[in-house]
Amino acid sequence: MKILVINCGSSSLKYQVLDMNGEILLAKGLVERIGMDGSVITHEKIGMDKVRNETPMESHKEAIQLVLDAIIDPEHGVVKDMSEIGAVGHRVVHAGEKYASSVLIDDDVIQALEECVELAPLHNPPNLLGIAACQELMPNTPMVGVFDTAFHQTMPPESYIYAIPYEYYQKHKIRRYGFHGTSHKYVSQRAADIMNCNLDDLKIITCHLGNGASVSAIKRGVCIDTSMGFTPLEGLVMGTRCGDIDPAIVTYIREKEHLDQGVANEILNTKSGVLGISGVSSDFRDLEEAAEEGNERAQLAIKVFAHKVRFYIGAYIAEMNGVDAIVFTAGVGENDIAMRDIICNDLGNLGIKLDLVKNKTRGKEAIISRDDSRVKIILIPTDEELMIARDTLEIVKGLNK
Amino acid sequence: MKILVINCGSSSLKYQVLDMNGEILLAKGLVERIGMDGSVITHEKIGMDKVRNETPMESHKEAIQLVLDAIIDPEHGVVKDMSEIGAVGHRVVHAGEKYASSVLIDDDVIQALEECVELAPLHNPPNLLGIAACQELMPNTPMVGVFDTAFHQTMPPESYIYAIPYEYYQKHKIRRYGFHGTSHKYVSQRAADIMNCNLDDLKIITCHLGNGASVSAIKRGVCIDTSMGFTPLEGLVMGTRCGDIDPAIVTYIREKEHLDQGVANEILNTKSGVLGISGVSSDFRDLEEAAEEGNERAQLAIKVFAHKVRFYIGAYIAEMNGVDAIVFTAGVGENDIAMRDIICNDLGNLGIKLDLVKNKTRGKEAIISRDDSRVKIILIPTDEELMIARDTLEIVKGLNK
Repeated sequence: MKILVINCGSSSLKYQVLDMNGEILLAKGLVERIGMDGSVITHEKIGMDKVRNETPMESHKEAIQLVLDAIIDPEHGVVKDMSEIGAVGHRVVHAGEKYASSVLIDDDVIQALEECVELAPLHNPPNLLGIAACQELMPNTPMVGVFDTAFHQTMPPESYIYAIPYEYYQKHKIRRYGFHGTSHKYVSQRAADIMNCNLDDLKIITCHLGNGASVSAIKRGVCIDTSMGFTPLEGLVMGTRCGDIDPAIVTYIREKEHLDQGVANEILNTKSGVLGISGVSSDFRDLEEAAEEGNERAQLAIKVFAHKVRFYIGAYIAEMNGVDAIVFTAGVGENDIAMRDIICNDLGNLGIKLDLVKNKTRGKEAIISRDDSRVKIILIPTDEELMIARDTLEIVKGLNK
Repeated sequence: MKILVINCGSSSLKYQVLDMNGEILLAKGLVERIGMDGSVITHEKIGMDKVRNETPMESHKEAIQLVLDAIIDPEHGVVKDMSEIGAVGHRVVHAGEKYASSVLIDDDVIQALEECVELAPLHNPPNLLGIAACQELMPNTPMVGVFDTAFHQTMPPESYIYAIPYEYYQKHKIRRYGFHGTSHKYVSQRAADIMNCNLDDLKIITCHLGNGASVSAIKRGVCIDTSMGFTPLEGLVMGTRCGDIDPAIVTYIREKEHLDQGVANEILNTKSGVLGISGVSSDFRDLEEAAEEGNERAQLAIKVFAHKVRFYIGAYIAEMNGVDAIVFTAGVGENDIAMRDIICNDLGNLGIKLDLVKNKTRGKEAIISRDDSRVKIILIPTDEELMIARDTLEIVKGLNK
């Protein structure tokens, strides 16, 4: 079966077509500036050059139509007829407490996701637009929702309940949800494969370190804690997000800087993180360059970032009473050799020993711990689209039974 | 030398007189409702019954005068003449980045502490009132300031810098300070004594678990991290304080509940913590009673509290690359057998094994880990007043050289 995977943002859209017979990527692409001047689709049939087509598109529906056109294009397409696409898997950010796994999309699901808009006002609306557009253009194709929050729904209450008045959980659904779930799930399963172990026998800490970053504690395949919280602002230091801070700082900053709420939120989300500390960049390549040139705040930003990852690794080792594997994934996790070195340095008493030679690897699967390291350290490029396609396939298979 | 220790709050004042020749507590007392109706001083000469004296007092100066009267009282007093008091040690909450240790109080110190009022608006002003009153009534007696923040000033920048725009640190002094420093310092020193080890050889995690609660990582006698932050709101779940939450929750609650800033702060400081989760009480004895009777939210509050202590213990083990001793102190830490059990449960793979029989101890020094536990678990009643008196003695001794 061929599956189309859609990840729809407010003005952009990423897609992939996979042949699940062998899990082969056939095509992928990106639509940018939907509803704006200069909108453009970039399509790539694997093995051929990218094609770029600047063309006006007013709506997500028009964007999806362009995607479908590209997929069935005689030269750059990968299917002859849209009926070859057996299902569409949609990435949806927030499913609240409603779904702990992926689900076939029907009217009830749409309604549940609409109820979560308040919890993810920037993400769920475009996700829903993408689903509606696909439903209109492919009315007979099953659609599956794959949720960033779902994998974390297994957390026990002591991990997800905040120590605030309990009625805020009941009335406003304020609790830890966690995000990047599809990535944490994918890399934890790959880690078990790579270790040639059963996932049910393992305690794994997955470090998804990108511009957004989160750590999860996965015990016997089940997520028991994760660093992102009610929103993706909590937890690790990120490219531009503050992560954990004293909650009293939020109001202190507003008072001192005379900020209204919107501006304060924007500062914590877009002007903080390693960008805020360094004043240089949210990109770790820029930071490391500046650090090498002697920029002290860039050096500090790198240290603070690594410190917080180490902090969570330790915390989750205690929560699981041990760890068998630590996984690094996403942009920084997959490519930043120096950062992995700082994070894993001086953890030998916890059985964590990085092999400095094996660590000189970028963007491919590798065990990078020393042979005498009790805990395996594993580099795994994440593949959220493949995970979405797998979940989609499984649900659609179930339908046909 | 006899030393008077003063801990001055906004409407109350605690004091002790210690004979530092043998570190013997001679008298202690409490003044309540200063400047209010029904003000009262309760004085206790050690070995005698408490005396309670309801008497009007308008100011901190009048309160201190009553303390001095009690100390030299022919029957309940402990000195014949005030000149026997060689020095006064004052507990002061916030010394900002200015002082990493206790200091003889002079005009420069007073000014520095006044500059910290903004960082501790509820605490530093009464602390300063107490100092001024003592200076007026005992003009020839040296005064020493002992600061809650001082012990934590050794933290490296990666522990104390938040990932917010760096100018907020420069302009507004927003950073992690940490509190309860005098207690963390005292119990870490005692732990080394009890273990018959040199503090310089040890990695210690100190859990100060009272109504306010914090954990510190102390490596070779030096604090390298602590859970309270810019204010005492961050970190562990507390009796009524929220501890760590997603910073986005602060504004979300304000919007949803239509709260102004003062009310929101008050909720996070006084209506949250285990009280907020349970709806029962901020007192762990009440919580445990309710939990035993089947109150699920009280059970949950206990779990969330313990979870967060375990979380920090793990995090600090990673930061120090190991731990030799975990210390429990303050109200809950010293007395709550069940809570210590939950916190230390299922940490055996980290070398932490509680002895369930030895753990049945309250309020006295005891090693409560199993003999085969690599990490010692130690119960130590805190004694901030003794620590203040020791620091005071040391500084005053230096003067006389």
